[in-house]
Amino acid sequence: MVQTQDELFESQLEAVSDLLASRRYLELRELFSDINCADTAQILEELPQEKLPLVFRILPKEDAAEVFSYFDSDTQEHLIRAFSDQELKEVLDELYIDDTVDMIEEMPASVVRRILEIAPQEMRHSINQILHYPDDSAGSLMTTEFVRLKRDMTVEEAFVSIRRTGIDKETIYTCYVTENDRRLVGLVTAKTLLLSDSDALIEDIMEDNVISVSTHEDQESTAQMFNKYDFLALPVVDTENRLVGIITVDDAIDVIQEEATEDIEKMAAISPTDKPYLKMSVFKTFLSRIPWLTLLMLSATFTGYIITAYEQALDKLVILTAFIPMLMNTAGNSGSQASVTVTRGLSLDEIEFRDLPRVIWKEFRIAILCGITLALVNFLKLYFLDQVGFHIALVISLTLVVAVIAAKVIGCALPMLAKKIGLDPAVMASPFITTIVDALTLVVYFQIASMMLGI
Amino acid sequence: MVQTQDELFESQLEAVSDLLASRRYLELRELFSDINCADTAQILEELPQEKLPLVFRILPKEDAAEVFSYFDSDTQEHLIRAFSDQELKEVLDELYIDDTVDMIEEMPASVVRRILEIAPQEMRHSINQILHYPDDSAGSLMTTEFVRLKRDMTVEEAFVSIRRTGIDKETIYTCYVTENDRRLVGLVTAKTLLLSDSDALIEDIMEDNVISVSTHEDQESTAQMFNKYDFLALPVVDTENRLVGIITVDDAIDVIQEEATEDIEKMAAISPTDKPYLKMSVFKTFLSRIPWLTLLMLSATFTGYIITAYEQALDKLVILTAFIPMLMNTAGNSGSQASVTVTRGLSLDEIEFRDLPRVIWKEFRIAILCGITLALVNFLKLYFLDQVGFHIALVISLTLVVAVIAAKVIGCALPMLAKKIGLDPAVMASPFITTIVDALTLVVYFQIASMMLGI
Repeated sequence: MVQTQDELFESQLEAVSDLLASRRYLELRELFSDINCADTAQILEELPQEKLPLVFRILPKEDAAEVFSYFDSDTQEHLIRAFSDQELKEVLDELYIDDTVDMIEEMPASVVRRILEIAPQEMRHSINQILHYPDDSAGSLMTTEFVRLKRDMTVEEAFVSIRRTGIDKETIYTCYVTENDRRLVGLVTAKTLLLSDSDALIEDIMEDNVISVSTHEDQESTAQMFNKYDFLALPVVDTENRLVGIITVDDAIDVIQEEATEDIEKMAAISPTDKPYLKMSVFKTFLSRIPWLTLLMLSATFTGYIITAYEQALDKLVILTAFIPMLMNTAGNSGSQASVTVTRGLSLDEIEFRDLPRVIWKEFRIAILCGITLALVNFLKLYFLDQVGFHIALVISLTLVVAVIAAKVIGCALPMLAKKIGLDPAVMASPFITTIVDALTLVVYFQIASMMLGI
Repeated sequence: MVQTQDELFESQLEAVSDLLASRRYLELRELFSDINCADTAQILEELPQEKLPLVFRILPKEDAAEVFSYFDSDTQEHLIRAFSDQELKEVLDELYIDDTVDMIEEMPASVVRRILEIAPQEMRHSINQILHYPDDSAGSLMTTEFVRLKRDMTVEEAFVSIRRTGIDKETIYTCYVTENDRRLVGLVTAKTLLLSDSDALIEDIMEDNVISVSTHEDQESTAQMFNKYDFLALPVVDTENRLVGIITVDDAIDVIQEEATEDIEKMAAISPTDKPYLKMSVFKTFLSRIPWLTLLMLSATFTGYIITAYEQALDKLVILTAFIPMLMNTAGNSGSQASVTVTRGLSLDEIEFRDLPRVIWKEFRIAILCGITLALVNFLKLYFLDQVGFHIALVISLTLVVAVIAAKVIGCALPMLAKKIGLDPAVMASPFITTIVDALTLVVYFQIASMMLGI
């Protein structure tokens, strides 16, 4: 039987701990050369922190920088503080420039200063260039290390150029063709190069309708382009269409995961954070949650005022109180089904604002089906099982129909309107809509009750 | 200024419609050869359906199959029904085998039969092989078209082999080295090949610790491996470690998106669907929503029984009713913050079951901070602003502290326990926990009220 990845990881971790405890460093180095760098990074993070600098120095030279790039920022900072200037320089030389920038963004000022002092002139220039783009923009995701070809090269010359410079480039599988003023005019994939005659001219085999993003494009829509076009890399251009960098598919995957997590957090009334759960301090997690909890608590007291306003009516028929939670929950669930579906559709570019009438009409019909089904189930249960009396069962069932319809229509429309005016649909999606729907449900309930029961 | 992708798309759509209306088919074909195939597919889907077969025949031959692979299944089915056998065969010959299988999975039986009749023997064999793996497994995601090398080949021989067969392979950037019995022994990237001497032996330059998945591995954890290791392709092996296919990164991205959508839907009490929102019929959307709505409505009536049980107490102090929705909402929100965070952490492999004590202890401390803050804000508001009286304000604030702590601890623990016993954490995450937390909050509220107010 083949081992699963989890079993393999556990056995590797144990082997590393054993060799380390018995100080068999040569065997340890050999073991590491057989382990994927991402796994090595994970194993090292499981070891006691004070062992880390020692073990890192044992790693095979050619793996060290790649392992380093997989560490989380706390581990990176800890290591940099333990590094000599020479060691730091060696790691920096081997890191891809976008990984260096990702790391710098998380470091305290003193560490950043030290890195920039040690980095050679050219690297410092590239770092500063990428750092200057806004967070969450295509420019901040890109790397400046890519293969640049000229249109009058032959395929053979292109291969020579790739062989000469390729080792330091993040990808050689998509090569970009630029004019002397750095304007992007085409691209050639390594596949095309390999399948072409060696004396063919680049301009004859290149793809000349190149899809690119501008440096200021939002990272979410940039990542969506990878999803849509199945790219391995995407060129980033400035306002004059000059090629300034490329984004590779691995970074697009990170963004897709990050944006999905952000949407999920916002729908659950949490301010998005960029650290994994177990790495966040209790106090920081508290801070990401308490503003929304407080706001929603205060806005929920609004429902209390509505109940108080109908206190006299309730006094006469306390049994009505017993159904408030069920009505509010059901309407709330109906609303978030609609809002969450629409919000996700907006994120994936499946729904546009111009679809608003179509979406409302669709939700309206779904709501009628849902409302009637729920009302029927509820009426049968109340009348025959709970024996609450015909009129009360009718009031509650009618409230359900109206509340579900209102909840679904509001639920689908609010996120779309929010996006249109530049607000965040995910924030609208769940917490806010629940509060609005709760208040509405109560008013509908008490109105119908007053009319039908004469209280 | 550079056009944005949206503007470009709108102008292309308009140009296509104009040329089509004036029957300038030659110009239309030229225009299509300048448009990316994913965009062409999207443009064609915006056109009236009866024009589709005509326009599809206008497409440049080399683009047709790729455009076809980007269509949604309704459009594919419509086109296949309009195709002659010859046309269908031409498209099938050009499609990658995994795209063919994706398509077949969505087609009605009569269309599948026709496809399998037309497909050549070897293709039919591969299709049947992939179809036989369970949905959502690595085997069902893979393609059987990849570059296979032998360990005793030289780099030059490898290039000859790639040039001969590469045109039909989904990727040539990762080549797999197998023994004669098809056991996987190594991999070589195109980058390594390009940077090596042409007479080097494959076995000397290949990576021999190959990370692979088994055909039955779940698609979600398979996709997570792309995220972790930054792969462009991942080999799929059977139980004897024989290489049967590969998964490419574009399919991993689709899975990542799909799984995030599924989690979001489950958290919002929707049965996951695999069609985009606007393509689903009203009735099917209704069916994906109503079971959960009904179940949650019926379980919410449980809270009604609790209220009825305390009816006499409430009768004496109707004002207590007014705070029920606020208390239930706040506890519910606190619980889903914890459960949603933990569920997402489980999906991203950031949290394992063995972290349970750590997670509970963390949530407990967060809950104390949140509970006290909320209780304080609430007490001040009730006592000074709403002037409800000291004892009632105290009852409500104490209930908040207890309910928030219970909600967060249950909220974090339930999804982890669910995953451990093989249930879906995302289903636990929100709808279920809200119901449990609601009932608990009411009991706590009435107990504290009875004790402190003597009712």
